[in-house]
This record gives sequence, C-alpha cells and structure tokens, in this order.
Amino acid sequence: MRRWNGWGDESNHYPLKEEAKQFLGQQIGPGNPLPDASLETVIASVPASRLPEHPLINTDAEHRVRHARGQSLPDWLALHSGNIGQFPDGVAFPESADQVRELMNYAVQNHVELITYGGGSSVAGHINPRPSERPTLTLSMLNFNQLIHLDRESNLATFGAGTPGPLIESQLKPHGYMLGHFPQSWELSTVGGWVASRSSGQQSLRYGRIEQLFAGANIETTEGTLSIPTIPASSAGPDIREIILGSEGRMGVITDVTVRVSPLPEQERFYVVFFPDWDSGVQAVRYLTQQRIPLSMMRLSNPQETWTQLKLAGHATAINVLERYLSLRGARTQKCMFTFGVTGSKAACKSALALAAPVIKQFEGVNTGTLLGKKWEENRFKSPYLRHGLWEQGYAVDTLETAVDWVRVPAAVDAIERAINNTLKSAGERIHVFTHLSHVYNQGSSIYTTYVFRCAKTYDETLDRWRRIKQAASQAIIKNGGTISHQHGVGTDHAPYLKAEKGELGIAAIDRLCHQFDPNGIMNPGKLLPQDQ
Amino acid sequence: MRRWNGWGDESNHYPLKEEAKQFLGQQIGPGNPLPDASLETVIASVPASRLPEHPLINTDAEHRVRHARGQSLPDWLALHSGNIGQFPDGVAFPESADQVRELMNYAVQNHVELITYGGGSSVAGHINPRPSERPTLTLSMLNFNQLIHLDRESNLATFGAGTPGPLIESQLKPHGYMLGHFPQSWELSTVGGWVASRSSGQQSLRYGRIEQLFAGANIETTEGTLSIPTIPASSAGPDIREIILGSEGRMGVITDVTVRVSPLPEQERFYVVFFPDWDSGVQAVRYLTQQRIPLSMMRLSNPQETWTQLKLAGHATAINVLERYLSLRGARTQKCMFTFGVTGSKAACKSALALAAPVIKQFEGVNTGTLLGKKWEENRFKSPYLRHGLWEQGYAVDTLETAVDWVRVPAAVDAIERAINNTLKSAGERIHVFTHLSHVYNQGSSIYTTYVFRCAKTYDETLDRWRRIKQAASQAIIKNGGTISHQHGVGTDHAPYLKAEKGELGIAAIDRLCHQFDPNGIMNPGKLLPQDQ
Repeated sequence: MRRWNGWGDESNHYPLKEEAKQFLGQQIGPGNPLPDASLETVIASVPASRLPEHPLINTDAEHRVRHARGQSLPDWLALHSGNIGQFPDGVAFPESADQVRELMNYAVQNHVELITYGGGSSVAGHINPRPSERPTLTLSMLNFNQLIHLDRESNLATFGAGTPGPLIESQLKPHGYMLGHFPQSWELSTVGGWVASRSSGQQSLRYGRIEQLFAGANIETTEGTLSIPTIPASSAGPDIREIILGSEGRMGVITDVTVRVSPLPEQERFYVVFFPDWDSGVQAVRYLTQQRIPLSMMRLSNPQETWTQLKLAGHATAINVLERYLSLRGARTQKCMFTFGVTGSKAACKSALALAAPVIKQFEGVNTGTLLGKKWEENRFKSPYLRHGLWEQGYAVDTLETAVDWVRVPAAVDAIERAINNTLKSAGERIHVFTHLSHVYNQGSSIYTTYVFRCAKTYDETLDRWRRIKQAASQAIIKNGGTISHQHGVGTDHAPYLKAEKGELGIAAIDRLCHQFDPNGIMNPGKLLPQDQ
Repeated sequence: MRRWNGWGDESNHYPLKEEAKQFLGQQIGPGNPLPDASLETVIASVPASRLPEHPLINTDAEHRVRHARGQSLPDWLALHSGNIGQFPDGVAFPESADQVRELMNYAVQNHVELITYGGGSSVAGHINPRPSERPTLTLSMLNFNQLIHLDRESNLATFGAGTPGPLIESQLKPHGYMLGHFPQSWELSTVGGWVASRSSGQQSLRYGRIEQLFAGANIETTEGTLSIPTIPASSAGPDIREIILGSEGRMGVITDVTVRVSPLPEQERFYVVFFPDWDSGVQAVRYLTQQRIPLSMMRLSNPQETWTQLKLAGHATAINVLERYLSLRGARTQKCMFTFGVTGSKAACKSALALAAPVIKQFEGVNTGTLLGKKWEENRFKSPYLRHGLWEQGYAVDTLETAVDWVRVPAAVDAIERAINNTLKSAGERIHVFTHLSHVYNQGSSIYTTYVFRCAKTYDETLDRWRRIKQAASQAIIKNGGTISHQHGVGTDHAPYLKAEKGELGIAAIDRLCHQFDPNGIMNPGKLLPQDQ
C-alpha cells in the first residue's frame, strides 16, 4: 500500500546503513529523531466537509488525509507531525471527461475550489489546499491511466492524463515503444502532472523535456474543452501547448495527453568516468554537449557529491580499491564522478562512444566502464526513499535545483552551496551539501543540490530551519541568474521568486491567461503566481 | 539597390532559361506578361500623410512605397500593377530602444497604428498597412543590425532585432561562431522577424527552429519593457518566450534578440540520393529521422519536383547521362531526389554518413555523391529571385506550406496538389505543381508546395486565380490535419484558418494576450487573429 506520509509503497524500505550513519555523524553530528503522528490520530483531526453532496465526491477522512499534501519537506513535516492544517473537503475520482465536466460545473455552481491531483509527487506545494472560505475539492486523475491510442507511423501515443511513469512504459513496451521520460518521481508522477509542471527526466538529453515530448492534449476548462491537435511544428502564432505546459492546474483539467514516443532502442549502456576536478569535469560536459555528441544522459557530481556517494555506496573495500586506482590515474580528493549513457542501435552507441572518448581523454577523465553505471541504473528511482532512512535517524533531507548559462555555472554552484552552508552557522549547526549537473544544454546546465541537516528539537523549529535554508538558496539562485525551478515547477514555494524570471509584464500575462481560462478563479488558486498579484 | 517591387538587389537577375520556357509552355501553355507600373507613377499616387510631424518620422512618398508591402503574391501583384491601396503614413528608422519608446508614446498619444518592419520579406501580409481611420506608422528596425554581445562559454549572441541573415553570420564568423538559421528569405529577413513569425531554416534539423534558437530578448511594449532573461530551460510556469514567438508585432517591438549559436563546424557536405519512388523516399526520410541519424538537413522532392528540377537545371546533356545511370539503378520516372547534409567534426560527419548509408540502401536509394549537393548549396537562397524570371514570361509562382504527422503525409501532399490542380480546371487553365518535404520531425514533416500558373488578362483576374488556389489549398491543409503555416506565419492571409489549430479558446487566449500587452490596440492590428475576433 502507498505510504500516507512519505514516498512510495510501504513494502520498499531502505534504512540508513551503519557506514552512512557514521559518516553523517562525523559531518554534521548525531541526528535528532522526532515523534511520528499516526494515521489514526490524523484521521480523527479531520474537520467535517463543507462540500454539498455529490455522487462522484468522496468525503471520507482517510481519502482527504491522503490527498492533503505532496512530497515537499514542509509537506513531510506536516504529515509526520500530524499538524496538516488544510485538508480538501472531498476527493473525486472521475472516470471520464464527462465526469470531469460535471464536477467542474458543480464547482462553479457551488463556489468550490478545484485541485487536480496526479501522482501527488509535487515538491513545491502544487496540490495542497489553501485556507479559504470556499471549500476545496481534489480531483484525482487516478482512473485516467490507459494507453488510448498509438500511432506507430508518427510515433505518437495518447494516454489518460493520470497515467504514472511505470504504466506509461509498461503499456508501450509490448508494442515496441517507449516514452523515455524519467524524472526521479517516475514511480508516482503522471503524464498530466509532467505537462502541468514542465517536468524533465533523467534522459532529457536524448528524449527531450516534457515540452519536447508533449504533442497534444484535451483540457477541460470551465469555459469549454480546449483541444490541442498534434502538429509536428507550426509558425502559426503563439503556441497554446506552451501555455498549458506549466499551467499547474490554474487553467483547466488535462484529461488526456498525446506524447512523442520512440521505438525501443537496441542497446543502452551507462558508463562512469572520473575527472580530476570540478573545473575539468564541467568543461568536459560542456564540450560534449556543445559538440552535439549524441549521448543519452550526463550527470556530473561535484567533489562533495562524489565523495558522499562513494562513502554511502556501502562497499568500503571495493570503493577503496577503486579510489586507489583513480588516485594513481590522477583523480584524487577533488575527483568528480561523471555518469553518461549511450542509447540506440548498436552502431549508433558505438559511434557515440567513439566520439565521446577523445573529449573525455582531453579533460583527463578516467573511464571505469559500465559497472558503476549499472549501479546508477539500478538505483535511479530510489533517491526519494532515502528520506525515510534519514528521517528515522533524525535527519531531514531536501533538494533544490535551477538552470543557468554555462558562464554562470561555477559561481552559481558555489553561491548556492555557500548560502545553504551559512544559514544555520549562527545556530552552530552544520549542513551536508552536495551538487550535480544532470540536464545539459548548448547554452547551460541544470544545477541540482542536495542538503542534509539535523532535525531541531521541535517540528516548528525544524520547519524554520528549512525555511531559512530555502530562502537563502532561492535568493542565491535568483542573484546568479538562475530559474527558480528547472524541473520542479512553481507551486507555492517558488512563487515569490517568479518575478525575476518572468518580469512584471510576464507575470501579468500569465495572470491574464489564468483569468481567461478560469474567470471564476476556482482552479487551484494560490499556486503558480506570487500572491500579491 | 534593393528592388522596390520584388525580391533582393536589382543587380541580381536570373532570366528564365530557354529550356525552362519550353518546359512550362508544354506543361501549362505560353505565359501572359502583364504591364509593370513604374516607381515614379506609384510615388505620384501616394496620398498626403496623416501623421502629426515628428523628427524621427520620414513621410517621403518613396519611403512609404518601399514599406507598403511584403513579398506575398498579392503583394507582388499590387506592386507591379501599381494598385497598392494602403501606404504607411510615414516610416521611422529608430536607432535605440529609447527612440522606439519615444515613437510608441507618440503613437499612443496620437492614435497611430504601428507596424514593425524587419526585412519586409513576409509572404503572408504581416507588414501591410490596413485601411483605417487612424494613420499608420511603419517602424523600420534597419538600424538595429549589430552584434551586441557574444558569450563564448554559453554559446549565446545578442543582436539588434533588425539584423538580417547575412549580417548575423558575417558578424559571428570572425569569432568562430555561426547561428545556422537559413530560411529561404535569409538574404533579407531579420532575427526579430524570425522570432515574431516563428521562422524555420533549411538546417533546422541540426540547429533547430527559431523557437529552439531564441534564448532571450528585450521587447518594448506600450506598457513597459519586457525583458526575457537567458535561461537554458525552466519549469517555472508558462514560457513567455513562446508568447513572443509568433506574436507578429501585436504585442510589442522586439529591439534585441539573444540567440543560441554554435562553433563553426569543421566540415559540411551535402549529398544527393535518388529513391525509386515517393513511397520509398518518404519511408527512408521518416526512418532516418526517427532513428535520430544526426544529419544536418533533409529535403525530399516528389517525382514532379524532381523532374522539374532536373529539367530546369539547364545542363541537358549531363542530366541525360545522370538519368540513364539512375534508370539502370532502378530510379526511373517516379524517382525522388533526396538532398541531405552532414555537418560537424570530420569524425562526426563520417559517423553520420555511416549510420545513414544502410537506411538509404534499405530503401533502394542511389547516392550520387556531393556534386548535386554542391549545386543545391550554391542556389539555396536563389529561389525567391525566380519569380522575376517567370514574371517576365507571363507566369505567376507561389508556394505554400504546412506540417502534418507522418501518418498524414501522403494523403496531405496528394490533397494539396489536387486542390491546386483542380482550381482553374473549369477555366481550362493548367497549373504546374510540385512538392518537397524539408523539415522533418520524429512526429511528422513539413510539406512545401510550389505552383506556377499563367497570368490572366488583367491583374484583378490574376489575383482572383491566386485567391481561389490559396483558398482551395488552405482548406485541403486544414482538412488533412495540417497547420496553416509551418514557417511563414499567419499575417492576414492565414488568419481565417487559424481556428482549426488553436480552437476557440486558444484564439481567445491569444487575443487576450494582445490586449494585455497592447491595451490601445495600436500594434499591427488586423494581423495574426481572424477578424471576427
């Protein structure tokens, strides 16, 4: 069964290994476990629903608890403390676009706020009900989970918008196709959510971001159905697709999505290379990207992340051998782990590898082959589970991300890590911070930073620590010319920082679009835009 | 000097060759030359300007004539007949964003309609003044033609929005960079115009459409300056870039554009292959694209275009030898010419060629090497000049284009060609029609159709012929699920067909955005949106 207060299925449990415990103890001190609220207590605290009855709406307390929060760290703290604040007044599980329209009419008539819920994997507050005089209805897209149409000639597949990652791939595979959109949230997140929040997957280098994969959709709005036809490319005015992408439930309910799929590749391999330091690693990755070497993914860990990953890998002896070998080859304390993939026909993989090899050599990379690459592949969706293991030991973990032009990458990484590190210094607390680049573009790169800190004595103080870290890091991102989110969306947590990217006029334009599609202001209000709008 | 009533510089003249004349005579009958109006007559017909005086505004009749029309066939007929209808009331040539703002304030205060003019190469009516009680001011971006900044690390270059193709490349080349955006209008069209009309270049397969090349901009609106910062990718809400792309002067004046540039490639070659028929050619091109073979351009001519190009090449003996050779290899009357490019490092070119070869073989393509590819390269920007040679002989030529999913390509090509062919049948007129695919995507392809017809006895009747052809072809495009424009934009000519692609709600959203950025309704009114809005 899916966890009510954390990530994934309850049967998946990865407690922190002894080595990791020791490592963190040395780095930032012993953890401080906080007491967990039980589901029963939380259910008992749910107030009466304010929704008028409707046959499609379920007002059971447990459903309302299970749809109250996403997966941000504040969400985690709320669920674990039991201090959840707002619950939706009810949850509906429509089974057709007709039922969605019926529920939207109901919402308009009864002044109900509507939240569309995909996989509930938001880490930015997208699907949390807000305090409001109007009741909130959460509309779960759970039942929209089927492959509806596959066009083998045009490589197009239409899915119900609530189809999660694994069901996308498992329904395509028997036909010889795949989508290739693999965000870390892949296990739970849905294709409709990817579109609504402009998601990016681990192999965006090959398959593209969801913007490139998104070919068409049907969207129910209170003003009618918006159908976006599949057209390969168009110069006919502003692109409506790009208005729906990132609309975060503010404009309508996406009911089905047509995506650009690919034939299953003949071969796929992941390799791990170590560069002697961050500077050579960044240059190599930039060069591989700008030379258009057709790799299918790249991820470059900074020295702190490299070190952490090797320490936490849990095979001390094997890692020691590896480190001695790397040391002999020149990759020592500042070494940076670089994971990359090649995907396609055997001939294409071979030629991609051959084109990459001289660049790796030029920047003194040591290729360790596919062994560590296989490990990466095995664990590629496990990171969200690690929060549990850390939590049990009294540590909180969160991640944040941005993207900047190449010229800004080194300073931005430095500023973000420094901002996080400095936040709790006055309180005598250390924070363990590390970073990687994992989505690369001709123009620049994403920056993905993970930080672990000790829980404070209370939930409130722990949340306060998070708030201070988040604020300092967000300001560092903005100051260094980054987007407030490269792959997590805006929700509530990033809305205060949106103006730097969009400008006053851009924010006003998005606000106008929300009003245009949702003149009653009932679609996920309070999300996406800064609240002074 | 630039031609006042046609394409390019007066010194470039390509009269129709004798062989071509004979060929067209056989195909559709002898031409019917119409008398050309002189510049002097047209200048004498320009009415007095209605604009209040302003030091930045020039109201000379010749300037007003030279900015009255673009390069569509109706524009051509208007200019050559001398029956131009509307002229702008004045032309300004601002030299700074400050001057643009000053002119916009002037326009707001004096109820003046503003048309932004880049290279004047529109083929859809974008820059034509409309009949209006308010005077029209055309704002030429001629002086915004400099490389402002080059970021060599992030591969970003900022140009004045009025910089035309040749000045883009000539200013980048000494630094070792290039943009790689090569629409057929490259000689005259500007980077601001490319953005405003969502242009696509001949090598979009490698370099991307302008949507992929467009990284940031400054746009002056009557409501203030909209600055779009350069960010490699973002999930922070709807993309403002994608609202300005295709805005066709309705939202503001783009003053500078930052584009994603590339290092100059080590090597570039174009090859020509012949496939035995259209079906095998389309399949080969689709397969090459969907297998991600890294070619830098592809163009597949249908049998009619292949035949026409070989006939018009003007080297009858050499072509005969080629045709005999192809015939022996199985490419006969239905043969289709396929031009493709490889670009990059020598190693990358070699591996792209090696990956493409088995696909070409699989579909029975005969590779004739780089000789015809070089010819294509030499002539790649000459097509717009051919209208002159045809016109002198009494023929009118126009092109139209769309993009559809692969599954629709054969039927759409067939329907478009048939619609054009049938239009003048009742009048006993034949039309010479041929088609190629030149922008290919995983999902589908562009379709580019050229048609030549005889001028009628009068200009009005000739325009009427064009109208009937355009309408029939546009309806065929819409009926076959195509966009009304893959690379030419909407302007006035395509606006009536926009609803099929955008939907009622989409049209309303674009209309809202225009109002938001231009509440006075003075920015290029009458363009982009259907007039019943």
